Order: sequence, then C-alpha cells, then structure tokens
Amino acid sequence: MKKEVALGIDIGGTNTAFGFIDREGNYLADGNILTGKHEDVHDYLRELYLEIEKVFDTIREGHTLIGIGIGAPNGNYYKGTIEYAVNLRWNEVIPMCDMLQEYYPGIPVCLTNDANAAAIGEMVYGGARGMKDFIMVTLGTGVGSGFVSNGKLIYGHDGFAGELGHIIVSPNGRQCGCGRQGCLETYVSATGVKRTAYKMMAKYNYPSELRSIPFNEMTSKTICEAALKGDLIAINTFKYTAKMLGEALANMVAITSPEAIFLMGGLAKAGDLLFVPTKDHMEMNMLKNFSNKVKLLPSQLTQNVAIYGAAALAWNELKQ
Amino acid sequence: MKKEVALGIDIGGTNTAFGFIDREGNYLADGNILTGKHEDVHDYLRELYLEIEKVFDTIREGHTLIGIGIGAPNGNYYKGTIEYAVNLRWNEVIPMCDMLQEYYPGIPVCLTNDANAAAIGEMVYGGARGMKDFIMVTLGTGVGSGFVSNGKLIYGHDGFAGELGHIIVSPNGRQCGCGRQGCLETYVSATGVKRTAYKMMAKYNYPSELRSIPFNEMTSKTICEAALKGDLIAINTFKYTAKMLGEALANMVAITSPEAIFLMGGLAKAGDLLFVPTKDHMEMNMLKNFSNKVKLLPSQLTQNVAIYGAAALAWNELKQ
Repeated sequence: MKKEVALGIDIGGTNTAFGFIDREGNYLADGNILTGKHEDVHDYLRELYLEIEKVFDTIREGHTLIGIGIGAPNGNYYKGTIEYAVNLRWNEVIPMCDMLQEYYPGIPVCLTNDANAAAIGEMVYGGARGMKDFIMVTLGTGVGSGFVSNGKLIYGHDGFAGELGHIIVSPNGRQCGCGRQGCLETYVSATGVKRTAYKMMAKYNYPSELRSIPFNEMTSKTICEAALKGDLIAINTFKYTAKMLGEALANMVAITSPEAIFLMGGLAKAGDLLFVPTKDHMEMNMLKNFSNKVKLLPSQLTQNVAIYGAAALAWNELKQ
Repeated sequence: MKKEVALGIDIGGTNTAFGFIDREGNYLADGNILTGKHEDVHDYLRELYLEIEKVFDTIREGHTLIGIGIGAPNGNYYKGTIEYAVNLRWNEVIPMCDMLQEYYPGIPVCLTNDANAAAIGEMVYGGARGMKDFIMVTLGTGVGSGFVSNGKLIYGHDGFAGELGHIIVSPNGRQCGCGRQGCLETYVSATGVKRTAYKMMAKYNYPSELRSIPFNEMTSKTICEAALKGDLIAINTFKYTAKMLGEALANMVAITSPEAIFLMGGLAKAGDLLFVPTKDHMEMNMLKNFSNKVKLLPSQLTQNVAIYGAAALAWNELKQ
C-alpha cells in the first residue's frame, strides 16, 4: 500500500521552496524555483508544477499525494488567494489555490499566511502537539502570529486575523511600514531591535562595539553577540525589547488564555537573552488569574519551518 | 408533545435571578432570591432550587426542562466552578455545576462568566445570530468581554479567556481593582468615565454642571445627560473614553478579525455619544486590511440580558 504524503509550498519574495512530508513528519524530498522570474503568474505556476513533478518522480513509487498546503504573504485562507502582497511581483489578488488546483484536480489545495502556517506546523509536528489553545509568534523582519483556540486557527471573518505585529503598543510611537505608528513590530522584530540599539546609543554613554557599525550593516545577530559579550548597549536593547514583547504578550493572554506562547524566527534564536526577560515582563504585567500559567517556549520546528507549516496545513485540513 | 425550555440563572452579588426561555427566545417565567442571605452555599442552593421549582410549576404543564445555564462572576466553564469571586459571600472555589446537578440529575448544567454568557446570548438570541466571529464587550461597573471565533466562544486553556477589561492600555496608568495599573476598565467602564470626568475638570476651565456633583454621587448617566445638553466637560469625557475604547478595539480587530463588535451595558446606553467617536477612533487606529470591515453595534438584547445569556449557554451546549 502506498504511503500518504502532503506537499508543502512556501512562497517567498525571492524563492518558492517546496517539500513532501508524511504524517509523521518525515521530510522526503524537496525543491525550489525563483518566485520573481516570471512576470505572468501563469508562467510561474507552470514552472512550479514541472519542478514539483520532477521532485515527486523521485519518490512517486510508494507514495500518494493527498493534499497541498501553501504558505504565502497576505494569504487568505477562506478564498485561497494571495492579496496585494508587496513583496511579490504580482501585486494584485491571485487565486493561487484555484490556479494550482487545475494542475492537481481532485487533490485538496489550501493556503494561508506564513505565520498561520507556522502555528499549524507547531500543532501538527512541533511543541504544540496536543494543545488546543496556544499562540505562535514569528519574530523575523516583521512580526507575524497565529492564534489557535479550541484546537482551531483563528482566521477571523475575513481570513486575515492574527496580526499581533500590528497592534499599536505605543500611540504616536515608531513609524511602521503599515503607514501607522507604534506597532509592536517596530519594537520587537529584527528591524525593531536594531532601531532600539540606536535608541540606546542615543540615550546612554556606555562604550559599545555597536557604535562602529552603520545602521544598514547592523543585524539583530550582531546585537545578540554583543550582548552575550556583556556590551551594555546591547544588553539594554534586549531588556527594552523584552519589556515591549512581554507587555504585549500579557495582554494577549488576557484575551485568549493560551496554554503556551511559542516564539520562532531570527530573534528567537537569541535564546535566554530574549526568553528570560520577556517571561519576566510578561509575568509582571499579567492579570493575577493567569500568573505562572502560561509557558513561553521556543518553537520546536527548526529546519524547513515554512515547508513543514504548509504541509501541516494540508494534513490539518484533511483531519477536519 | 411538551415544548423544550432551558433555565437561565444569573448569579449576581446581590440577587440571583432566573428565567425559563424556549429555543425561539420566548421568556416564559422567572423568579429571584437574594444571593447574600446564606453563609453556607448549600443553604443558598436549597432555597434557589425550591424557588426554581415553584416558578417552574407555573409552566410545568406543557414544558420539559432540557438544560440549565449559569452566568456567574469568575465562572469557570471547564470546571463548572465559581472561583474566588470577590462580590460573592463564598470567596473560594464553589463547584456550582456539580452542586446544582444533584438537584437535577440527568439534566446538563453548565456555567460561564457573565460576559461570556452575554456573548452567547447575542449569538443565540440577538444581533450575532449567524455570525461565526464577533466580540461582545460589556461596559458596566467593570468591562467584560466574550470573544467568539469559528463559531465558538474562546474559553482558553484555563476557562478564563476574554478579559478585555484587563488589557493594560496605559502602562503606569490608572490604578485598577485587579492590583495593576492602566487596565482598559479603569478608562471605559461606568467608573472609568467618572474618573475621566474628574480628569477633565482638572484639565479644563469650562463651567460645567458636573462641578457641583461629588464623586460619590456622580454616575455615567449624569455625565451622559450633561453631554447631551452640550456640557463641554462631559463632551470631552466621552471623547476621551471613545479614544481609549476605539484604540483598544482596533488592536483586538488585528487579533481576531471579527465581523462585528457589540457593546452592551450601562455605558452603551449613551448611544451615538459613545458609538460615533468610538467607531471613528477604531477606524483611525485600524490596520488598513481591516478598514471599514468591522461593524460596531449595540447589543440587541435589552431585557433580562443575563438570564437570556445563561439560557443561551444551555441551548448552545445542546447544539454541540
């Protein structure tokens, strides 16, 4: 009997990566193409299809494809569309599921945004297995999130729920790419941390190796490394970041009362440097009912996360 | 054939009110007892049972009791308990469902907090009929809330989710009854509005009829009436309240992307005075994706709201 596999596709601004994963989480084969090569999305899909088939040929014997999941920026779960994604070449409404469906008649195709896919990935393959209520926070260039309640992802009425990065935590605060000010992601993303390092250099006189690095060359990794070496500017940067994140998470706990909050993405790699003070600030700001009830954990997905998330989406659909 | 009815019980600090309601929302009979009369919760329940039976006798012919729902402060849905409710005489963990169950063997008994019951009431009998994603906000002495996503109430891991009144909207802000500072309910509850009126009298020189009313005698209704007469202190009070509420609601929209937000309770009776500027501030602070998508509506439940909510909880359980 053939073994069932799901195909996970991660559509990013530069690359589209995909992989075949079975229900137990075995990563069987993968491939990728350039996302931005084709002006016409139909040409892109044709190339993607051919590449997928080529990779599937290597495992086709012994495997049946039972579902396709897609993670994409501005992905709308309900409609299966990618809507006005600024990082993609087709900045319009793309009916991605329907279009891919034409190549795979009879096989369920579903789509959501990257952070929601990460949440489902954690639920199906990672540390949230068996949990019914948790929050996934992705700390990358921006901040994404996926909220799971009653065992289901909260997509909301329009399919775009879970924008934790765009709750306003500081009215009239930092300018955000979304056109507003003071969004959480201007403080706790990789970019936000960099902005905070500059704030700290303006505020304090401490000598710091960060003072010799221009803004455009600094990364959250540089700041993390400096902090581990005892650099006071970098340490204060992480303290401030943890304060902003911990306060926001305490507020989210009051709303959805999760069993755990998972952090994922570049900044989460800072480990204790981020987790310890964030947990402290979360507890300090927590409504008493929730004190010491909510775990703050690193994601257990570490490799090919986006592909795992997309494949998990496919498995999760089949379960429903 | 007998018609099915549910019993809704609203346990308040002073009174316990109950009523029998059918699936269509017909309010058939009701009664009440004093909550605080008995030191022992067993004596309280015995009196409540006898009173319920007396009232049920008036409609027993032709009706079958199919479920009991209870709305109570600090009610835990999962455990059926009331936990450390400061306004009740039994400030401990009361296994209310189990205790009532002994009087009604075989009939499902369930319990949740007042605001969650209000949300389910709106979903079963009110303006949220047919909605899968909405938020109910109760603006009373405090601020309560119930979040519905994917057609289900978000109880969270521990059963205490939906504490919108206790998200911190102003770090180091107003002192809150919960022991922290800057919670939303210190600004937008009936009490919060009063505090804001005093802030406005401190800030501005405008003559105002509110200046002749001591703090302890002022109510949100007084302030509302003054505002309708053009009193500038009262008008600025509502503007500030609407700003705080609108900003918080915009953040909540980014998380759960509801179809509508319902406002209920004393302060919601201020009508346009509250709804118009709150909607304005909500839109001003909204992530663009959600602009003009989310309705801000008054609850359609106006009479015996808490009893309707508790009965709706019973109906909702049977549906699952």
